[in-house]
Amino acid sequence: MRFEIERKFLVADGAWRAAATGFRSLRDGLIGQFEAGKVRVRLDGGRAWLTVKGARAGLSRTEFEYEVPRAHGEAMLAEVCVGRILEKTRWCVPHEGLSWEVDVYGGTLAGLVLAEVELEREDQPFARPAWLGQEVTGDPRFRQSALLRLGESGRPLSAEAILASAA
Amino acid sequence: MRFEIERKFLVADGAWRAAATGFRSLRDGLIGQFEAGKVRVRLDGGRAWLTVKGARAGLSRTEFEYEVPRAHGEAMLAEVCVGRILEKTRWCVPHEGLSWEVDVYGGTLAGLVLAEVELEREDQPFARPAWLGQEVTGDPRFRQSALLRLGESGRPLSAEAILASAA
Repeated sequence: MRFEIERKFLVADGAWRAAATGFRSLRDGLIGQFEAGKVRVRLDGGRAWLTVKGARAGLSRTEFEYEVPRAHGEAMLAEVCVGRILEKTRWCVPHEGLSWEVDVYGGTLAGLVLAEVELEREDQPFARPAWLGQEVTGDPRFRQSALLRLGESGRPLSAEAILASAA
Repeated sequence: MRFEIERKFLVADGAWRAAATGFRSLRDGLIGQFEAGKVRVRLDGGRAWLTVKGARAGLSRTEFEYEVPRAHGEAMLAEVCVGRILEKTRWCVPHEGLSWEVDVYGGTLAGLVLAEVELEREDQPFARPAWLGQEVTGDPRFRQSALLRLGESGRPLSAEAILASAA
């Protein structure tokens, strides 16, 4: 159980790649979303995690995360998350003491790149990397649930097209 | 991860009490429900469990269950399950080699009593205890989500009133 404070951004260009120190291949399945939060299963390399996220309050939300057997994660993706699965490569990009995560989406969301940083306080100042684009924290168009619906449309995707869509 | 096959019944009278061997006090919080299943947190004495149930297929459904710290369970009940909590006393009632569970509901569902038995095969024959009432397996009026909605109405509850309601 922990309190998660995250800020989310577009990326202005690919300069972050030069600073990246590694990556992980993630598959996120949305089990369900409801007024008070959501439940997700994540496959991360050979491991799997089940996560309950509480309601948002500002930039924050409570998170409960548990490691589960990899085979359970795969079964949940196949049986419980049908069609609600995001694939992404998560790059680790350190910048002035903070560890940025740059998510390069695959599958039906190929073309989309988002950067996130986790903070310890809502008002914590941080150095903006030069490659950082517009902030989209809290923008409902960039929540995973909205991205999943966009992916289902089968249209090619880009951050610009999402920004141009109705909130 | 296991495959759950359960049959659910009303009880005809209180004769099951004479055969009961013990009970547990449960609090079940519905985290979310969706097309393909539901996610629940359960407080059971000093322990807590997070459960993902898959879609029903006949009498069966896949279930993924994990023990979580009791404090997490309480926090999920308070923060994520607001208003979607069932309280029940679960009595263990053995009958001819099977272990029946008789749930006596409390809180807003006081007055409701349901009996369940878990089977190993869908077509497994079993001895019906004399106190068993009408089968309600698969009846949407007796799912936990429907019971939660009924509980919210604030009206007094009984199995007869639920049976008389629209499916």
